[in-house]
Amino acid sequence: MSIYLDNAATSHPKPEAVYRAMDQALRQVGANPGRGGHAMGLEAGRLVFEARESLADFFGIADSSRIAFTTNATEAINLALFGLLQAGDRVVTSTMEHNAVMRPLRVLRERGVEVVQVQGDRQGFVDPQAVRDACRVPTRLVVLSHCSNVSGTLQPVEEIGPWCRERGILFLLDAAQSAGAFPIHVDQLGADLLAVPGHKSLMGPQGTGFLYVRSGLHLNPLIHGGTGGHSNADGMPEEMPERYEAGTRNTPGIAGLKAAVDFLRETGLERIRTHEKALLQRLLDGLGRMPQIRVHGPSDLDRHGGACSITLDGIDPAQVGFWLDHAYDIVCRVGLHCAPDAHRTLGTHPRGTVRVSPGYFTTAEEIDALLAALAELPGRIAAEGGA
Amino acid sequence: MSIYLDNAATSHPKPEAVYRAMDQALRQVGANPGRGGHAMGLEAGRLVFEARESLADFFGIADSSRIAFTTNATEAINLALFGLLQAGDRVVTSTMEHNAVMRPLRVLRERGVEVVQVQGDRQGFVDPQAVRDACRVPTRLVVLSHCSNVSGTLQPVEEIGPWCRERGILFLLDAAQSAGAFPIHVDQLGADLLAVPGHKSLMGPQGTGFLYVRSGLHLNPLIHGGTGGHSNADGMPEEMPERYEAGTRNTPGIAGLKAAVDFLRETGLERIRTHEKALLQRLLDGLGRMPQIRVHGPSDLDRHGGACSITLDGIDPAQVGFWLDHAYDIVCRVGLHCAPDAHRTLGTHPRGTVRVSPGYFTTAEEIDALLAALAELPGRIAAEGGA
Repeated sequence: MSIYLDNAATSHPKPEAVYRAMDQALRQVGANPGRGGHAMGLEAGRLVFEARESLADFFGIADSSRIAFTTNATEAINLALFGLLQAGDRVVTSTMEHNAVMRPLRVLRERGVEVVQVQGDRQGFVDPQAVRDACRVPTRLVVLSHCSNVSGTLQPVEEIGPWCRERGILFLLDAAQSAGAFPIHVDQLGADLLAVPGHKSLMGPQGTGFLYVRSGLHLNPLIHGGTGGHSNADGMPEEMPERYEAGTRNTPGIAGLKAAVDFLRETGLERIRTHEKALLQRLLDGLGRMPQIRVHGPSDLDRHGGACSITLDGIDPAQVGFWLDHAYDIVCRVGLHCAPDAHRTLGTHPRGTVRVSPGYFTTAEEIDALLAALAELPGRIAAEGGA
Repeated sequence: MSIYLDNAATSHPKPEAVYRAMDQALRQVGANPGRGGHAMGLEAGRLVFEARESLADFFGIADSSRIAFTTNATEAINLALFGLLQAGDRVVTSTMEHNAVMRPLRVLRERGVEVVQVQGDRQGFVDPQAVRDACRVPTRLVVLSHCSNVSGTLQPVEEIGPWCRERGILFLLDAAQSAGAFPIHVDQLGADLLAVPGHKSLMGPQGTGFLYVRSGLHLNPLIHGGTGGHSNADGMPEEMPERYEAGTRNTPGIAGLKAAVDFLRETGLERIRTHEKALLQRLLDGLGRMPQIRVHGPSDLDRHGGACSITLDGIDPAQVGFWLDHAYDIVCRVGLHCAPDAHRTLGTHPRGTVRVSPGYFTTAEEIDALLAALAELPGRIAAEGGA
């Protein structure tokens, strides 16, 4: 069995309940939610509704209809940015963002949206005061990743979101790496828009995610089509969630996501965080004993999410990844992790890093195995040559 | 057990192999395809690649990289239309289209795209000559549904697509109701773009679909974000399929879709069509013996796909649907089926129809049960009153 340390890409394994819920939805629910008032369609609709309710409860969302299911967080971010921003709008973001934020913003820049990137520091932190300073010029939207997918840096968004809300600046929180790992309450964080993937720390299946849109906010849909009801209208319905959910949803995936969130609610985020923090502590302690290894991220464990980026002096990260995979059956991700600006900020561009991302099902023994492998790798590579 | 006659909304059940392939992908593959060069990521990537290969083979697509996975056919159509059309372009379509085509086109019309709708006849047929006539003015794109989701009308697209190709007019085929039911070879039909849902006649799970884009055609992406590789580029990569596949795909769904297509290839489309045609014949023969029932669709069975729309004289379709569901446990869909223009064409607007859509797993006995229910329904409704 491989040692899987790539949970920042997608969590694996999932809770057993996720597999079972999906199989049951496929075999027994079957119909298309919202397409047909018949009992089977209503049952599928109820399943999707209950998933929305579980998610709303988990994220402090008062009205679950403000959750629109998407394929992934990327689609949710695209829906938020393209649905909201017009030529002349100004956006403040940071140098720690993923391509899921930066690529849409670059397209919008070509359409006349002004994009300002606040510089992060070498640990990946974005100074809240620097964000507030950047908002002195009238600003429509602040968009920030909650937790870096490269360095695990947990941004102090509680010092940014509520400040934005007081000033009528919209705040989009990219929770790709934090949802399911840290408590998120949309109103406490001042998040008007929240983009969430289902398949990372939420422990749901790939192909799921959602965008939360605060009540009163009205976006242009990204995708237009049938929604089951409202067939007669020329355009997309005004109501959520239908407005942003054209076409048939991933019903079995949503069933799996509901089971995953219910697992998280039953287990408790605190218990999960305690386990993951202990693993991270063990990992960082071990790495600290190896002088040839550099850790690129926060020194404060309380501000450190699941991903941990390292480099080995004088060895290409790609080579480290190759050896870990082939000689030790340890699964990490190497390179730029779809976030080149973050690597520039951390000083690890263009070669990138080796990213180690344990999850709730990772064991201390697996961390020890990684540490042992990293300890002997430089010697082996020197002796046996590059891959 | 319900009698499920709503396969035009989504097919149910799926082949057993679909359930198994999804469960296996979830439990054993796990990693994120294209995210990480490690063995687990490569295995996930191989699974997605093999699904693309199976689909390419099934649709006569020479290069499987020209298939971009989407959540559904709606997203595929949106990607094609928004990715291609600019102000000043002219599009020819028909009055038989689904909202998945008409709603994006109405948005594009507001942006300066000219949209021409060719009128269908009372059986839902669009005259190829009328389409060709509509293309006398320079036209960028013809977009047509292959088979109506309301009436089952199978359009003679083989008389349209190749004609378009000869003249350099692009042809987008909406195969929502035909893919998996009728043979489709993209080049033989002259389809430059083909939008396919995974969860209807292809028998895959909800949350899957794809857009085929002919080699040489270059669209603007609908969604921008990370693609695993090419992390350092400012924008989306130029290459397919990455260009149109930002963010994490629905890997378990794609595994299920591959199993579904392999099931279709093993079973053979001819065998499936023979069974479905026999059911349709039985259905239409039975309906023909009931003078109070009107069938809204083709009289020629060879030009009739899976959906069959009926109305009962003097009874609201919604009431028929309610009774079939509650008194007989028969699942049909009633109303406008996200295609109001098609109902206008067929003369069934605004009340819509009762749509009966058998599938490969439907039995003759189930058709007979529906016919028996329909025979006694008017009397029961008259005696017991409306719902």
